[in-house]
Amino acid sequence: MTYRAPVRDQLFVLREVLGLDAYSNLPGFADAPMELVEQILTEGAKFCEEVLAPLNSVGDKQGCVWSADNTVTTPKGFKEAYKAMVDAGWPALGSEPEFGGQGLPRVIGLAYSEMSSAANMAFSMYPGLTHGAYSAILEGGSPEQKALYLPKLASAEWGGTMNLTEPQCGTDLGLLRTKAVPQGDGSYKISGQKIWISGGEHDMADNIVHLVLARIEGAPAGVRGISLFIVPKFLPTADGGVGPRNEGVKCVGLEEKMGIHGNATCFMSYEEATGWLIGEENSGLKLMFVMMNEARLGVGLQGLSQGEAAYQAAVTFAKDRLQGRSLTGPKNPDGPADPIIVHPDIRRMLMESKATLEGGRAFLLWAGLQGDLIHLAPDEASRQKASDYMGLMTPVLKAYFTDKGLKIASDAMQVHGGSGFTEHFPASQYLRDVRISLIYEGTNGIQALDLVGRKLAANGGRAVMTFFADVDAFVGEHEEDKAVAPFIEGLKSVRAQLQDGTTWLMQNGLANPDNAGAASMDYLNLFALTGLAYMWAKIALAANAAITAGSSDAFYANKLTTGRYFLERILPDAGAHLAKLKTGAGSLMALDAEAF
Amino acid sequence: MTYRAPVRDQLFVLREVLGLDAYSNLPGFADAPMELVEQILTEGAKFCEEVLAPLNSVGDKQGCVWSADNTVTTPKGFKEAYKAMVDAGWPALGSEPEFGGQGLPRVIGLAYSEMSSAANMAFSMYPGLTHGAYSAILEGGSPEQKALYLPKLASAEWGGTMNLTEPQCGTDLGLLRTKAVPQGDGSYKISGQKIWISGGEHDMADNIVHLVLARIEGAPAGVRGISLFIVPKFLPTADGGVGPRNEGVKCVGLEEKMGIHGNATCFMSYEEATGWLIGEENSGLKLMFVMMNEARLGVGLQGLSQGEAAYQAAVTFAKDRLQGRSLTGPKNPDGPADPIIVHPDIRRMLMESKATLEGGRAFLLWAGLQGDLIHLAPDEASRQKASDYMGLMTPVLKAYFTDKGLKIASDAMQVHGGSGFTEHFPASQYLRDVRISLIYEGTNGIQALDLVGRKLAANGGRAVMTFFADVDAFVGEHEEDKAVAPFIEGLKSVRAQLQDGTTWLMQNGLANPDNAGAASMDYLNLFALTGLAYMWAKIALAANAAITAGSSDAFYANKLTTGRYFLERILPDAGAHLAKLKTGAGSLMALDAEAF
Repeated sequence: MTYRAPVRDQLFVLREVLGLDAYSNLPGFADAPMELVEQILTEGAKFCEEVLAPLNSVGDKQGCVWSADNTVTTPKGFKEAYKAMVDAGWPALGSEPEFGGQGLPRVIGLAYSEMSSAANMAFSMYPGLTHGAYSAILEGGSPEQKALYLPKLASAEWGGTMNLTEPQCGTDLGLLRTKAVPQGDGSYKISGQKIWISGGEHDMADNIVHLVLARIEGAPAGVRGISLFIVPKFLPTADGGVGPRNEGVKCVGLEEKMGIHGNATCFMSYEEATGWLIGEENSGLKLMFVMMNEARLGVGLQGLSQGEAAYQAAVTFAKDRLQGRSLTGPKNPDGPADPIIVHPDIRRMLMESKATLEGGRAFLLWAGLQGDLIHLAPDEASRQKASDYMGLMTPVLKAYFTDKGLKIASDAMQVHGGSGFTEHFPASQYLRDVRISLIYEGTNGIQALDLVGRKLAANGGRAVMTFFADVDAFVGEHEEDKAVAPFIEGLKSVRAQLQDGTTWLMQNGLANPDNAGAASMDYLNLFALTGLAYMWAKIALAANAAITAGSSDAFYANKLTTGRYFLERILPDAGAHLAKLKTGAGSLMALDAEAF
Repeated sequence: MTYRAPVRDQLFVLREVLGLDAYSNLPGFADAPMELVEQILTEGAKFCEEVLAPLNSVGDKQGCVWSADNTVTTPKGFKEAYKAMVDAGWPALGSEPEFGGQGLPRVIGLAYSEMSSAANMAFSMYPGLTHGAYSAILEGGSPEQKALYLPKLASAEWGGTMNLTEPQCGTDLGLLRTKAVPQGDGSYKISGQKIWISGGEHDMADNIVHLVLARIEGAPAGVRGISLFIVPKFLPTADGGVGPRNEGVKCVGLEEKMGIHGNATCFMSYEEATGWLIGEENSGLKLMFVMMNEARLGVGLQGLSQGEAAYQAAVTFAKDRLQGRSLTGPKNPDGPADPIIVHPDIRRMLMESKATLEGGRAFLLWAGLQGDLIHLAPDEASRQKASDYMGLMTPVLKAYFTDKGLKIASDAMQVHGGSGFTEHFPASQYLRDVRISLIYEGTNGIQALDLVGRKLAANGGRAVMTFFADVDAFVGEHEEDKAVAPFIEGLKSVRAQLQDGTTWLMQNGLANPDNAGAASMDYLNLFALTGLAYMWAKIALAANAAITAGSSDAFYANKLTTGRYFLERILPDAGAHLAKLKTGAGSLMALDAEAF
C-alpha cells in the first residue's frame, strides 16, 4: 500500500473537535462550509496519493542534478507534477483572493499541506517555501511589489526562496556578510554567498524569487543592520512577465545530503545581482521572521506527516509479514505463522505512533485555526489571544513533532525488521527525509530557547497564563463528566506539572540564564505533553458525544482506546521531564570544554 | 579531528573500576598484567585510528560492488587494511593458543573491538562475524573440523559468516526451508536461498566459511528440525589449504542499504553445495545461539562505539563552530561569536552522550569480564553466576546501547546543525550505520522478549535474584561512604523500582503473556538504568578513591560530575518506564488490526 491521506481523521478534527462550523460567520470560513471542505480535502487527497506519492521514491533515488551552466534538473516527473499542481490551484488555497488566491481559511491549507508533505516531502518544499515568500512580501512589500510578485507566488508559477544562511552564519544572523549597495534608482546590487537554499534553482517554475538577507553599506553591525531584498532570477517586466536574466544570481552547486534528495539544496552566489528592498532599511529580520514563523509551523507538520507516512508503511508491513505466533495462541492458525501485528512490542510501536499522530494532528490544526483567528476574529481580545497562542505554540509544535516524527519513522523501520534497513522498502527514506526537520528553520534547541527565553516572558507571561486559564476552564466545565474522567484527570495532573516547571523557570531562570537554557528542552517537552493531553481530552469529548448520540462507528470507540494509550504510556514522561528540568544547569555546565 | 580511541577510559575501567589485577591468578589473565594490556590497547588504538578510521568514509561512499561473475569488490583500501589486520594478529587476541590465538582475556578483545568498530563499523563486521563462526565450531565442531578451520578463522585469513535468514523467515526460524541431503560420505548437499548475509562474499580473505542453518531431509518441522552446516566457499585440502571452488555456493547479489555500505550484505544461493554437519543432527539452533549470543554483545558494543565516534565528532564541531554568545556573557570576547559548546542545550546533548557512553563502557566491559569468568572462574558457583549474568545482561546490553547509540548519533547530528545533514561531515554516516544495530542479531523487541520471557524465569529467577543480592551487598558495603552518597541513593532507588517492575511482571505475565510482552521494552530499559546506576556507583567509588589518594588529575573529578549528570538527568526516566510497564497489555492490545 502507498500513502493514504487521513481525510476522515482531518474532518473529524475540523468538524467535531475544533467545531469549525462555529466560525462560519467569519470571512473565509463563510465561504467554506464543511461540505466544501470535505470536497476540497478529498480532491487534494487524490492529487497527493496519485500524483505526488508515486514520485517520492523516484525523487530520493534520482535526486536533483546540477549542471555547469548553473541549472538544476529535478527528478523525472517532478516538472509535470508541478505543472499539474499549479493548474489545479493547490498552492493558492489559503492565499488572498485579490492576488488570485482562493481565500480559504489557513487551517484548510494546513490540512492539505499535511497530505502533500506526507506524500512527497522533498517536492512539497518547493511550493511550501514559495508560500513563505508570498507571506513576507504580503506583510512588508510595497503595493507595486505586491502587485508584481504576489499573483505569481500565490499560484506558484514562480517559486520563492529564503536566503539566510552563509557559511559562517546560521543560527547567529548577526554574523551575516552579504552586502547591498544602493544604485540610486531604488535598486541595489547584492553580493555574497548563501548556502542551504532550498529550491534555489530548478526547472519547474518560470521564475524564482529569492528573498535575501543582506547588509546595506554602512548599516550597523549585528542583527540591527540587516535588510531584506527581493532578488528575482529573471527581472520581471512591468506587466508581470518574465524579463531578462538577473545575471548576478547563480546556483553554483548542490549540497549532498542524507535525505530530501528531490529538493535542490543550493549554494547560491550573488555577484552584484539586482535586488529591491522590502520594507524599511535594517528591518529585514522582522520580515524574515514572518516567513520563518510560518515555516516553523510547516516544519512541525512535516515531522507529523513523515511520521504518518512511515506509520502507514509499518502498519501494512505488520499486517502482511508472517513471523512467530501470538503469545496467547495462534491468530492465523491456517497460515505458517501469525502476522506480526499480534506481537505486543510491535503493537507498542504502532500505538505509540498512532496516539502521537492523532493527538498531534488535532494540536497542529488547532494551531492553524489560531493562525486564522489572528486575522479574522471579530474582537481585538480574541485576535490577541490567537496571536499569543501562535507565538507560544509554534516552537513547541516545531520541535516536538519533528522529534516525534523521527522517532515514529525509526520505529516504522524497526517494525520492518531487516527489510526496513534496505532501500527496497520506504522506511529508510522516511527516516532520512524527516531528519532535516529537527534542524532547519531553527534547530529544535533554538525552538526550546525561543520558548523559555522569549515566548514565556513576552507581555509579562500573558500567553502561558491564558493557556492555563483556558485549560482550567475546560477542566471545570467537564470535571463531572464521568465518561471522560481519565482524560480530565490526566490533563489536570500534567497541567500541575507544567505549572511547577514554569514556576521553577521563573524563579531560577532569571538568577542564572544557564538554568533556563538547561531546562529548555525538557520544559518544551512538558509543554507539548500538556498540549497533547488537552487535545486528547477534546478528542475524547467529541468521540464520546458521537457515541452518546448513538453512533456505533468503531472510529469513535477507537479514539477513546488510543487516547487511553496516550494517558497510560506517553503522558508518564512528563514527570521525568519535570524532574530533569528542575536540576538546573549545575551538572550540565560544570565541566571545562577540555573535559569533553 | 578524526576518531581517537578512548584508551585512557578503557584502562580506568579495567584497572580501577573492575579491578582486573585481582584476577591475575586465572589463566589468560596471568599472562596479561595491566602493563601489557596497556601496551596492547595503545597499539590497537594506533591501528584503528591510523588504518581503519581513514577508510570509514571511503567505504560509505564507494560501497561494495557485485559483479556478474558472483564476486564482490570491497572499497578501495579495505583489502590492504584487512591484510595488515591479519598480519598484526588483531582478530586473534582472545582466541585459543592451540589454534593460533593469543589467549588473552575476552574482555581485552572486547576493548579492542570497541575501538575497531568505532573506527570503521562496516569493516570490523568482517572479522567480527568470523570470530562468531570460530566460536560455533569451537563449541560444536569435531576435532577434525576444529583442526581444519579454527586456525584460519582465528587469524581471519579465512572469513566466516552466519546464514540464518531466508526471505520468508527471519525472527521465526521455524519457517526455515533450506535443505540438506546426506551423501553417505559424511557430507551433505545444501540447497536454499539465504538473505542479508554479512560478508557472504568479498575479496579480502583466502576463503569464506559459511555456517548455514538447514533442514536435513525428513527432519521434524519447526525449530526442532534445524541443523548447522559448514559450507566453505573453497573446499579445504586436508592440510588446511584452499582446494577447489564449492561450485554450489554463490553470492547472487548485494542488498542496497541505508548504511554500512562498506560491508557486503549478500543474497546467497546454495545449489547442492557441499557441506558438513557441525555437532548433532537437529541441534543447529543451539550452536547458532553460541554465535548469536556472542554477536549480540558485539552489537551492543557497536551501538556504543558508533555513539562514541559520533560524540567525538560533535565535540570537535561544538568547540570549533562560532555562533551566538553564552547566556552568561561572552566567553570568546575577541572572536566574532562564542563556540557553541557554551550553549546549555548543546551541553545537554554532549553530557547525555558522555554519561551514557562512559557508564555503558563500564557496563559492557563488566559483561565481557563475566564472559571470561564463565570459563575461568575457579569454582562452579562463580562460573554459574558469570553465566547467569551473561544470559541476563546480553539482551539488555544489545537493545539499550544500540538504542542509545542511535540517539547519540542523532544528537551528534543535531549539534552539527545543517552541516550534520550533509554528507561532508561524518554525522550522517554514523547515524545511518548505527541504525542496523537495533535490528540485526535479533531486533531490540526480540531482546526484550528474550529478557522477560526466558532470561528472567530461567532457573527459577536465579539470575535476577543474584543481581539484586549483589547490588544489595554493594549498597550495604558503601552506604556510609558520604563521598559517594548520591550514587548509592540513586542505585537504591532504581533497584527498588526494578524490584517493583519484576514483581509486577511475575504476577501479571503468567496470567496473560501479552502483559509480559507489553511490558518488555520498558522493563528492559528499567533494567539497563539499574545496571548503569550500579556501574556509575562503581565508577564514582574508583574516582573517589583516586582523589582521596591524592590525585589532582581532573579526569577523576570529571567522572564524579558526569556521574552526577547521569543521576540527575538520565535516571529519572526509570520512573516513567515503571509507570508505563505497569499499565499492562490493556490499551496496547485493545484495537482490532483493522483499526490501524
